[in-house]
Amino acid sequence: MLNLNLTDRSAQPSYMQLYTQIRDQIRSGGIPYGSRLPSVRSLMQQLSISKTTVESAYQILLAEGYAVSRPRSGLYVTNPFGVAKPAKSTAELLPTPKQPLQLQVFPADDCYRIDFRPSAVDEQLFPMRSWRKVLHEALDHSQGKINKYGDPQGEYAFRSVLAEYLRNSRGVVCVPEQIVVGTGIHYSVGILAKLFAAGIDHIAFEEPGFAPVREHFIQYGFQVSPIEVRDNGISLEGLENSGAQAVYITPSHQFPTGSVMPYPERERLLHWAQTRDAYIIEDDYDGEFRYFVKPLPSLQGLDRDGRVIYIGTFSKAFTPALRMNYLVLPLILIEKMRQVQYLFDGPSRIDQWAMQSFIEQGHWYRHIRRMRKTYGKKHHRFIELIRTHLGERVQITGHNAGLHVQLTVNTRQTSDVLVKLAAEEGVKIYDLQEMRMRPRPPGDPQIYLGFGGVHEKEMEEGIRLIKKSWEGLWNKEKERN
Amino acid sequence: MLNLNLTDRSAQPSYMQLYTQIRDQIRSGGIPYGSRLPSVRSLMQQLSISKTTVESAYQILLAEGYAVSRPRSGLYVTNPFGVAKPAKSTAELLPTPKQPLQLQVFPADDCYRIDFRPSAVDEQLFPMRSWRKVLHEALDHSQGKINKYGDPQGEYAFRSVLAEYLRNSRGVVCVPEQIVVGTGIHYSVGILAKLFAAGIDHIAFEEPGFAPVREHFIQYGFQVSPIEVRDNGISLEGLENSGAQAVYITPSHQFPTGSVMPYPERERLLHWAQTRDAYIIEDDYDGEFRYFVKPLPSLQGLDRDGRVIYIGTFSKAFTPALRMNYLVLPLILIEKMRQVQYLFDGPSRIDQWAMQSFIEQGHWYRHIRRMRKTYGKKHHRFIELIRTHLGERVQITGHNAGLHVQLTVNTRQTSDVLVKLAAEEGVKIYDLQEMRMRPRPPGDPQIYLGFGGVHEKEMEEGIRLIKKSWEGLWNKEKERN
Repeated sequence: MLNLNLTDRSAQPSYMQLYTQIRDQIRSGGIPYGSRLPSVRSLMQQLSISKTTVESAYQILLAEGYAVSRPRSGLYVTNPFGVAKPAKSTAELLPTPKQPLQLQVFPADDCYRIDFRPSAVDEQLFPMRSWRKVLHEALDHSQGKINKYGDPQGEYAFRSVLAEYLRNSRGVVCVPEQIVVGTGIHYSVGILAKLFAAGIDHIAFEEPGFAPVREHFIQYGFQVSPIEVRDNGISLEGLENSGAQAVYITPSHQFPTGSVMPYPERERLLHWAQTRDAYIIEDDYDGEFRYFVKPLPSLQGLDRDGRVIYIGTFSKAFTPALRMNYLVLPLILIEKMRQVQYLFDGPSRIDQWAMQSFIEQGHWYRHIRRMRKTYGKKHHRFIELIRTHLGERVQITGHNAGLHVQLTVNTRQTSDVLVKLAAEEGVKIYDLQEMRMRPRPPGDPQIYLGFGGVHEKEMEEGIRLIKKSWEGLWNKEKERN
Repeated sequence: MLNLNLTDRSAQPSYMQLYTQIRDQIRSGGIPYGSRLPSVRSLMQQLSISKTTVESAYQILLAEGYAVSRPRSGLYVTNPFGVAKPAKSTAELLPTPKQPLQLQVFPADDCYRIDFRPSAVDEQLFPMRSWRKVLHEALDHSQGKINKYGDPQGEYAFRSVLAEYLRNSRGVVCVPEQIVVGTGIHYSVGILAKLFAAGIDHIAFEEPGFAPVREHFIQYGFQVSPIEVRDNGISLEGLENSGAQAVYITPSHQFPTGSVMPYPERERLLHWAQTRDAYIIEDDYDGEFRYFVKPLPSLQGLDRDGRVIYIGTFSKAFTPALRMNYLVLPLILIEKMRQVQYLFDGPSRIDQWAMQSFIEQGHWYRHIRRMRKTYGKKHHRFIELIRTHLGERVQITGHNAGLHVQLTVNTRQTSDVLVKLAAEEGVKIYDLQEMRMRPRPPGDPQIYLGFGGVHEKEMEEGIRLIKKSWEGLWNKEKERN
């Protein structure tokens, strides 16, 4: 299915809209070179448009060279590199009709006017000047190292600095040998899958929880039990009865509900792990960001039995573009890690040297303070805007921390309808249901919104547009009552 | 086992040597903080030294605070971070005696005077100035991107540039959609393991071949069949009879033997893949470096049936410190790749933007020309030195390409003895047997040497020292004849 969206409100006729959208997706790479375009008939059905509209659009694409026609096969996107194959053309190498190459395009996020994407961070806050400086210094001091592979667990000196930072900032108690520097959460999950290979095959997961990680564990063949998240974090009764040998949690700011696990529940969770010889995977993805109280120390720091595996990242507090995170293993897993470490290729050594200096020279602490202050303000403003414009029709939960909030919306509609309505106004919001493994218990629909990557101006416009998109719904429901 | 090496030739007494070596390994992180030191008895046996020697060394370590003694347990390396745990100490968290934490130290490579490591590259050749420039530019143009996750297959514009380079330079025929940017060969093998998950479970592997990749496939549960490598590359008879559904090969410069697969064998290999619906994994790790003739085009470029998976890397031609490589998939695997791409975290977006400019601006081509010239000279000199000093006692194979050569040594000794003798003179050379899955067929022992990371001066010294280390052996064998 192509991502196409024709509208009557456009000044362009439908065939021009269709042509432009397909052309732009070919140019942007959304539609791969060499792939087959949908048949005229299927586009007619998909978009409820006339044959003439589709054929006109296709004829322009052909005329301009974006596509070529192959007899008895259809239209193919041209390969501008002009690949000359001795016997078969690239197009002929495409899967046969039995296995059609689906034109599953990249999410066309650029189409949205405002995207409340929870994973985006504030562009203005990237410490451009100091990062350039430490990158330079890293290259200055690269002699004797720039031509060699590094330690597969990560640069030792970087890990030493990281261990100290984690102790000061997040109460994580570890030595450099316990740290494994990686390229992101999936890198870390890949390692855990190897470390758990013998013995642990049943993992409990927050419901709702961070779906990509859950899917990753399922892919690796683990049995995954979803456990409901309450106001105090994951249900401990549910966990205790699940029979799982490990649990993946985000106790400092649950994703996506935003709940925080208080101290007594933390101790009870640790007790569970100790008595069952189970592991707790603590994903502290945005632990740096609490706005009104001091951040809760990590579970890892409370652990007296080496049952906690801690995961931290530079994606929130620095930038997801760098692709760098870390895993802190209990001592008991270090030897096993050494056995599997050759299966992984970590991030650039140069970036690790740079990040080491960035922390050592104090840039990191300054950066975090600055981020916390800016995000604190943005967060405050965001809550204010939601209260002002959406008022009593929504309840806000999971605030006071992190870079996203959750809304429970007072309506009889489902969350996917709310998401669609907002999308029609050009605003991308996120459906909490998508982070669930099972259907949601009855109740008002829930969505979540990130504010980290949205400018203050856009923020207000976004909330106004959401209000506009839902107003009709609310008015209709009011009339019925 | 600790990496310890006492010698009579030192001016220091044995206990001082022992103390110094353990201390330095603690400092360098080779021996982890909190780990248990070997018992006095086990060190006595390992090193054939007296009880007094070990006890004296241990007492200095205790006195200087590098270790602490725990009653009925032994000596533990001190944790200088002074971790204060409420109930248990870090040392008590260590595995119980039933599962001893092995002190498997990092290879103490710095102990060698000269290391003919095949994976090292020439430090002088790193294009420091132009790399700084493109890194800067990447940050200059990062607006709108620096705060977001990128495409999990790699930055699209970078892949476009890479596709063009691969076509010009290696005859690889592909579109950007086929390219997956990764952090190294293990990243790529991890992806292949996922793509092969349904249907392909039997992989043929060059014997000898690149052992870490072989082990990786075994770890993932694949059946691996070793197929002997001949002068013309992997034995095609062996492959045809193996029943394997995929083969991993290095046809342009076989690792480690250095053999090159000629054109007719390439066509026969492709025919095998086409008739069996099998995949060929072509690892073109040093395809850029041929010194006397134009590099052979890749197998991928000859492939008319989409059976070749091509792997290239920046580790040889640029630097292994960057951690960047790429995979070129056949069109038929693209859709499957899209389904598993979320399981992987690739390299830094910033580095990808920088590398894109590096190639676009022509730096890459200049860099490759410069490298080829320098390595060509070094290679010539290296062969000359081997011929001069080791003469007719060795046969050189696998030259004219890449960054390593293979030596067949005329002796009745085994290759591990040759490696040990060289090590005693401070020279690290590599045992070909270690790249084999099965014992070697009878014949003279074989070793291999990399020259990429060795300065010209060291090269001569290294070869002289190897000669010195083997001379006694050769003289003894001569006397006996």
